[in-house]
Amino acid sequence: MSFTLILRTQGMLLLFLGITMTIPGITALVYNEDTYTSFFPAAISTILAGILLLGFFKPLKKQISHREGFLIVALGWILATFFGSLPFIFDSTFSSFTDTYFETVSGFTTTGATVLTDVEILPKSILFWRSMIQWLGGMGIILFSIAILPLLGIGGMQLYKAEVPGPVLEKLTPRIAETARSLWKIYIFLSISQVMLLMFFGMDFFNAVCHSFTTMATGGFSTKNKSLESFNNPGLEIVCIIFMFAAGINFSLHYRLFNGKIKSFFKDREFLTYFSILFITTILITLCLYANGQTFAKSLLDSAFQATSIMTTTGYSNTNFDQWPAFSIMLLFILMFIGGSAGSTGGGIKCIRIMLLFKMVYREFITMIHPHAVTSVKIADKSVSPTIIRSICVFVVCYLLLFIFGSLFMSLCGLDFITAVSSTAASLGNIGPGLSGVGPYENYQFIPDFGKWVLILLMLLGRLEIFTILIIFIPEFWKK
Amino acid sequence: MSFTLILRTQGMLLLFLGITMTIPGITALVYNEDTYTSFFPAAISTILAGILLLGFFKPLKKQISHREGFLIVALGWILATFFGSLPFIFDSTFSSFTDTYFETVSGFTTTGATVLTDVEILPKSILFWRSMIQWLGGMGIILFSIAILPLLGIGGMQLYKAEVPGPVLEKLTPRIAETARSLWKIYIFLSISQVMLLMFFGMDFFNAVCHSFTTMATGGFSTKNKSLESFNNPGLEIVCIIFMFAAGINFSLHYRLFNGKIKSFFKDREFLTYFSILFITTILITLCLYANGQTFAKSLLDSAFQATSIMTTTGYSNTNFDQWPAFSIMLLFILMFIGGSAGSTGGGIKCIRIMLLFKMVYREFITMIHPHAVTSVKIADKSVSPTIIRSICVFVVCYLLLFIFGSLFMSLCGLDFITAVSSTAASLGNIGPGLSGVGPYENYQFIPDFGKWVLILLMLLGRLEIFTILIIFIPEFWKK
Repeated sequence: MSFTLILRTQGMLLLFLGITMTIPGITALVYNEDTYTSFFPAAISTILAGILLLGFFKPLKKQISHREGFLIVALGWILATFFGSLPFIFDSTFSSFTDTYFETVSGFTTTGATVLTDVEILPKSILFWRSMIQWLGGMGIILFSIAILPLLGIGGMQLYKAEVPGPVLEKLTPRIAETARSLWKIYIFLSISQVMLLMFFGMDFFNAVCHSFTTMATGGFSTKNKSLESFNNPGLEIVCIIFMFAAGINFSLHYRLFNGKIKSFFKDREFLTYFSILFITTILITLCLYANGQTFAKSLLDSAFQATSIMTTTGYSNTNFDQWPAFSIMLLFILMFIGGSAGSTGGGIKCIRIMLLFKMVYREFITMIHPHAVTSVKIADKSVSPTIIRSICVFVVCYLLLFIFGSLFMSLCGLDFITAVSSTAASLGNIGPGLSGVGPYENYQFIPDFGKWVLILLMLLGRLEIFTILIIFIPEFWKK
Repeated sequence: MSFTLILRTQGMLLLFLGITMTIPGITALVYNEDTYTSFFPAAISTILAGILLLGFFKPLKKQISHREGFLIVALGWILATFFGSLPFIFDSTFSSFTDTYFETVSGFTTTGATVLTDVEILPKSILFWRSMIQWLGGMGIILFSIAILPLLGIGGMQLYKAEVPGPVLEKLTPRIAETARSLWKIYIFLSISQVMLLMFFGMDFFNAVCHSFTTMATGGFSTKNKSLESFNNPGLEIVCIIFMFAAGINFSLHYRLFNGKIKSFFKDREFLTYFSILFITTILITLCLYANGQTFAKSLLDSAFQATSIMTTTGYSNTNFDQWPAFSIMLLFILMFIGGSAGSTGGGIKCIRIMLLFKMVYREFITMIHPHAVTSVKIADKSVSPTIIRSICVFVVCYLLLFIFGSLFMSLCGLDFITAVSSTAASLGNIGPGLSGVGPYENYQFIPDFGKWVLILLMLLGRLEIFTILIIFIPEFWKK
């Protein structure tokens, strides 16, 4: 294993992160806040650390092995979250390192779970950085899922190999850089569009930027304690629904759309699955809320907003859904596990895996009826290799095992059943708010430190498609 | 498809069932209860129905196809539960057909969920039949899982093909009859032993027989409202722990033990997994209860009793575990999904599948580290075929899908989150009591009829390893 190479990439990452930190620093100066004394030292420390790593470790080779790939990704997220928390540490935003790190990891992983009981008292520059780390995390995850995961041979994204303008062979740059650039352009374009639309519907520039950052990343941090509900403006909620929905779509599909391939966009099987699940759930919740006495319009808006927010794993709220009827809550809870599309900024198991699981089940029944028939799982008439199916099964099993063990650890902290399972599901799926004790009107402050660290680990595991982190703990990984 | 053959086997089944109904009839006469007027007409109706089917449908061939096998099993359980409910109908034990059928299905599937608020007011003969249908269900399930499932090519039991004194080829009798007879002998022997031991510890003959019936079947119906807690006798609880544990072991392993192959018994990988999970959970719950202020002895007894009762899917209670600390409840909830061993009378996913899932996950990680290595999942150095692994994955996926859709339907009935998920898990896993509204001190009476029918379906699906029922709903199944 070439540690030189691994550490050099970390150096580049830190250099980039350090430079971005100057933006909230400038924000602090603009708004006349003294938090610039936290941001600039943090930026300088991060840039210096980056330069040190780059200077000390000269490149030796260009090929990256599987194992180096895993380490680069895992280490990258750990370093980014650590250095990203420096402004909060220098500013003493939080009362403990656990809280600081929890909030930072929740940011970079685009989870959106917060330990803050009152975000509205924070300086604007701090709120800005808190939103921006989600946006950066979103960029990171697009790079990771569309450009890096296929190289490591995991995730549903192998299926897209031939379709993405991205890497096919085991070579890193310049292919990755090229892919990343095309997709980031779309990400930035969508973000700017959302800022403009939010402002059109009456939101001020600062809040529009912050919310656009956390929408496109499916992050969900808000500058308000009651999230979107605080604005009490259906126009803004509809804008957010549209952009959350867009953020939950595979960005390589957006790329096709931007290149005029509209037909191929609407024929994509994962997109259709994603849309259908969201559509059906929205209808069901609307009916449930309507039957429960809400007006139809309000039922539809609340339902569409919360279903989209939870399924894309954003985590915004426009109402206290924890008080909804049992059936609606159960539907939202199920959406937490499904999540967005592969190659989007959304978390969860991902629609393509859910779709393939159903196809696999159906295929097995056919095999049981005709034991000697030769069958295979297909997407749009193309066979999916058994290796990919197996890998998806293992992923789902791991996801559920983490959910089970996570819930167990959370209940060990004394959390009641619903709070334990929903905080675990909301962290592993990078959603943010859960139910009961961690519902949309609550926060994660009261959870004991041990529990917070469990959730931190779950957020990272969920965000990095589980395998990338877990594999490092297998002894075999470290053998020559 | 030969419907003649299918209906003939149903005739044999009904004949057998009708004859067994005379036993509670005689019980009624012995205890001087007028319920004999329900049992004998029920017995006669069932026997007549059996004779009619046998008489009308003469045998045509001896080979049974896959599809006929599925229909025989599914239809057999539906007819048995219907005719088995006749004594309750004639006696007007329950206020509606839904309740009657719920209780009967809960009996035959060895679930043990009850709609009765007070069982202690019932005539002894009715209590006896209620326990006996569990015992008959247990016999049915041993036959099904060890002799029939391998023929249908599903379930973890293919693995045992070579080891069981049972069928290997696609031929039914006399091999099935032979296997069934050997295993039923053990079942009866263990039941009698338990009766004697329960009586030794002070239980009267009637209760000892009823509880032995429902222990060996991992059924869990009791003659008392507070289950084993009513007897307030640690000796009885320990006897039940031992026999619940035995009932959760593969009966073909018991067969080996009875043939002096003690070593092979204790080396069986599924047995070791089963024992380890139960042992670790018992220790953890003991510590949790002890830390919560109970004496150590009481903590250990309660923990061992409830962990064994839930994991073997019996469903007895010796305390109101719904009031336990969150961590213990979460452990019990997880055990509900794991269940007993394949080829036992226990339900749930089964230990062998859980074990293979873990092995599959580990193997996948090794493949990720060494993409070109050739690996396979092994049990005791023997490779398990990818087909079996795939079938196990599909089973677990189906199990979880049923759990999800079941919970959704139950919440649609207005049940709160915990009651909805635990009633679903407890029915699908054939356990009986769940948590909250369906906890050990509660019952299923209050659930709306729609919900009861959902649970009836889940009990049958869980008991018949899902595929056997679901496959009938696939259109492909009915095509020529």
